[in-house]
Amino acid sequence: MSMTNAYEPGRAELGAIDRTLVARRERLLGPAYRLFYERPVHIVRGEGVWLYDAEGGAYLDVYNNVPSVGHCHPHVVEALCRQARILNTHTRYLHENVLDYAEKLLSTFPSELAHIMFTCTGSEANDLAYRIARSFTGGTGFIVTQLAYHGGTHVIAELSPSLGEYVKLGDHVRTVPAPDAYRNSGDEVGAAFAKNVRQAIEDLHNHGIKPAALLVDTIFSSDGVFTDPAGFLAEAAELIRGAGGLFIADEVQPGFGRTGGHMWGFQRHGVVPDMVSMGKPMGDGHPMAGLVVRPELVQAFGKSRYFNTFGGNPVSAAVGMAVLEVIEGEKLMANAREVGAYLHEGLRRLADKHPIIGDVRGAGLFIGVELVRDRVTREPATDETTRVVNGLREKRVLISSAGPSANILKIRPPLPFSKDNADLFLSTMDEVLVTT
Amino acid sequence: MSMTNAYEPGRAELGAIDRTLVARRERLLGPAYRLFYERPVHIVRGEGVWLYDAEGGAYLDVYNNVPSVGHCHPHVVEALCRQARILNTHTRYLHENVLDYAEKLLSTFPSELAHIMFTCTGSEANDLAYRIARSFTGGTGFIVTQLAYHGGTHVIAELSPSLGEYVKLGDHVRTVPAPDAYRNSGDEVGAAFAKNVRQAIEDLHNHGIKPAALLVDTIFSSDGVFTDPAGFLAEAAELIRGAGGLFIADEVQPGFGRTGGHMWGFQRHGVVPDMVSMGKPMGDGHPMAGLVVRPELVQAFGKSRYFNTFGGNPVSAAVGMAVLEVIEGEKLMANAREVGAYLHEGLRRLADKHPIIGDVRGAGLFIGVELVRDRVTREPATDETTRVVNGLREKRVLISSAGPSANILKIRPPLPFSKDNADLFLSTMDEVLVTT
Repeated sequence: MSMTNAYEPGRAELGAIDRTLVARRERLLGPAYRLFYERPVHIVRGEGVWLYDAEGGAYLDVYNNVPSVGHCHPHVVEALCRQARILNTHTRYLHENVLDYAEKLLSTFPSELAHIMFTCTGSEANDLAYRIARSFTGGTGFIVTQLAYHGGTHVIAELSPSLGEYVKLGDHVRTVPAPDAYRNSGDEVGAAFAKNVRQAIEDLHNHGIKPAALLVDTIFSSDGVFTDPAGFLAEAAELIRGAGGLFIADEVQPGFGRTGGHMWGFQRHGVVPDMVSMGKPMGDGHPMAGLVVRPELVQAFGKSRYFNTFGGNPVSAAVGMAVLEVIEGEKLMANAREVGAYLHEGLRRLADKHPIIGDVRGAGLFIGVELVRDRVTREPATDETTRVVNGLREKRVLISSAGPSANILKIRPPLPFSKDNADLFLSTMDEVLVTT
Repeated sequence: MSMTNAYEPGRAELGAIDRTLVARRERLLGPAYRLFYERPVHIVRGEGVWLYDAEGGAYLDVYNNVPSVGHCHPHVVEALCRQARILNTHTRYLHENVLDYAEKLLSTFPSELAHIMFTCTGSEANDLAYRIARSFTGGTGFIVTQLAYHGGTHVIAELSPSLGEYVKLGDHVRTVPAPDAYRNSGDEVGAAFAKNVRQAIEDLHNHGIKPAALLVDTIFSSDGVFTDPAGFLAEAAELIRGAGGLFIADEVQPGFGRTGGHMWGFQRHGVVPDMVSMGKPMGDGHPMAGLVVRPELVQAFGKSRYFNTFGGNPVSAAVGMAVLEVIEGEKLMANAREVGAYLHEGLRRLADKHPIIGDVRGAGLFIGVELVRDRVTREPATDETTRVVNGLREKRVLISSAGPSANILKIRPPLPFSKDNADLFLSTMDEVLVTT
C-alpha cells in the first residue's frame, strides 16, 4: 500500500457517528493511524467487489488487493470456519494442511524455488528474506527503488524510502530509480535500470559494503506501477548475482495472478528470483504471508531455528488453499487478463478525451494512470489527482494514488472485477475528470 | 516458546504416515522447521485442553499458551466466523470493532498506557517497540536477559540470545542474568537484578551507546520461569528510566490472565511499563498481537505512518474481543490462580518423593520445575529432563523444557485446565519420574 495517500480527514463534513469514531481512533490508537480520503469511509460489510456503509450505500472497490478473490468469499470463509472449529496450532506438531498447501503453492513456482517458510505478514516475509540474504551472502548492502515500500519492521522500514523523511534509510542501503518507461523514455528501460543497479553496486563497494541483495516489488506499486516492457528486470538480476548478491522478488503486490498473464510478477520478466516474498492477497484478508527460497540459501540459516508461532498453522493453510482453489476454479487470472485489458482500453479512450491523462500502464488488474498538467512537460498533476481520488470516493468508487508526486491513480480491484464493474468505474472516472 | 527444546525426530519409531509427513516437511519447508519430541506428535483435532491424533488418541495439553482459553473455543470460533462472513478489511476505513476492542483491552491497563497499536505477531509488536524506543529516546542500546526470546525479526532476533550461536546479538545489546531466586539465592533477587542492569547501563555508556530500553519477558519463560519474589522488577525499571531509557514489558508469555493474580505479568511486580507487547494468547490461535504505549512516546513516531495491513482488522478485533469475554465469563484468571495453586502444591508433593525435583516455581498456570542431579550442587539434570518430556509425550501428556541447561520443565496449559486435569498430569509425572 502506498504511503503517499493517507489524507487527513475533513471532519466538518463527517456525520456525528463518524466524527465520534475519528475521535475514538485518535484517543485509542494514537497518531500513527491514518484514514483514507478527505471524508473517510465507514464500512460495515463487504461482498465480492463491493463494500457497504451502514446506510446500505454500495462502494465499488477498485483498490483493495488483500480481498483478492473478493470480499468475504464464501469458499474461503467456509474453509476458515471449518478448520477453526477442528484445530489451530503451530508447526511443531505434524499436520497435513501446511504440507498440502506448501506443495500446491510451490507448484506455481519454477522448480528451483523449492522451499516455503510461512510468516503472518509481508513485512515478516521480507524481514526473513533480509536475514537469509545476509546469512547466505555474508553481505549487508541492499538495493531498492527510490520510492519502494517493503514493510514495517525496523530493517525493512530502512529499505522503504516511501515511508518518507521520518524513517531513515540504513547506511547500507542504496536506492535506484524505478524502471519508468514514461518519464525515462529516452533510454531502453531494462538497460537504464541495470545501469543504475550497477552504479549502486559500485557505490556499495566503494564504501566497503558487500552487496547482499537487490529487492524489488516486481510491479513497483508505490513507485508508480511499472510493467513494461516485459523483461526489464533480467539484466539487473544478473548484475546483482554477478556481484555476489541475491535477487529478491517482492510479490506482495503483483502476486497471486493479479497481472493476468502469470501467477507471479517476476514471471513477466523471464527471471527466476533467489527468494520470493508474498503476503496481502494470500489469505483474502486472513493474516498470512510467506517466503519462497532456493533450498541452498537456507542450509546454514536453518541452524538458527527460525520459528513463527502462527505461520503455517492449519487454519491459515486451509485458507490459503481455498484462495488458490478460487483463483483456479473461477479462472481469476484469465479474468484479470481480460477485464484488465478491457479496463486498460477504456482508460486509453478516456485519455483521448481528457488531456490530464498522461499515461495508462499496467498488467491485468493492476493499472496506473498518470495525471499530468501538460503532456509535453509531463508536470505532475498532484492536486488534481487528490481531487480525482476524493471525487471518486464521493461517487462511491474507491481507488488511491501513488508515485513520488502522488499523481498516479492506483487501480487494483479484487480479481472478480467484471466488465460491468469496469464500465461503472470508467463512466464515473469520466464524470469526475470533467469536473476536476 | 523456548528455542532449546526442538528435538530431532527418531524416525524409526514413527509409523509410515508420519514418516512420510516428516519427509515432506523437509522437502517443502526446509531445515529451519523443527518438531517437538523424539517421536513427533501428529495432531488432527483440538478441544479445550485436549489434542487428538488420527486414531482418536487424546493428549493432555499442558504446554500450549496460544489456545489460551482452550483449543477451538466455540465462542471465539463463532466470533471469527460471524465477522469473517461480513467484512475483513484494514484500518484505513472507519470501523467500530477495532475501537471497541481497543477500549476493552486498554481498560485492563493502568491509565498511563492509553494507546494500542495492532500487529499480527509478538515479533512485530516487539519490533515496533524497538522502533519507538529508538525514536523516543534517541538511544540504540538494549538490555535483555541472558536467555531471552523476544521474536524472529532481524532486530528482535538480535535481542534474543536463546536463539543460540547461529544468531549474533547486536553490538548495541547487553545481556543480564535473569532474576533467578533458585540459583542466586544468596542475594536479594530484585537488588541483584538491578545491580546487573546498572552494570549493563554503565557498559553501554562506556561504549558510547545511549540506552534505549530494558526489554524483559515479565515471567522470563525461556530463561527458566522466574516469578518471585513479587516486585523484583521495580528497581531495574527505575534504573533504566534514570538512564534515559524505557522499560518494555514483553507480555507475550504471561499476559491475558495466565499468572492468575493479574491480567499482565508486570502487575505482579508493581511497575508500570512504558510499553507492553502482547501476542500468542491474544486471539486463541488467530494471528494477532499488539503494543500498548504511553501516548507521549508515539507523538514523533506517529509522523512515520506505521501501517500494518492485517493488524486491527474487524475479524481480528472480533476474535480478540471474544477471547476477553471468555476470560471474564469463564473466570479463567480465578481458575488459573486456583488450579495453578493446586498444581503447584501437587508438584511440591512430588518433590518430596523425587529428589530430582530441585525447585517448583511459577504463578498461576505458568509453572517451572527445575530438575537437578543433586539438590546441594544443583547440577542441571539435562538429559533426564529430555527423558521426562519425551516420557510424558509417550503417555500422551504434552509439556516442554526451558532454561540455559534445558533442565526446567515448562508447564503452561490452556487456562480452562481443571483440578482433574492437574491430577492426571501429576499422576503421569509421578510415573515418568519413577522410571527416569
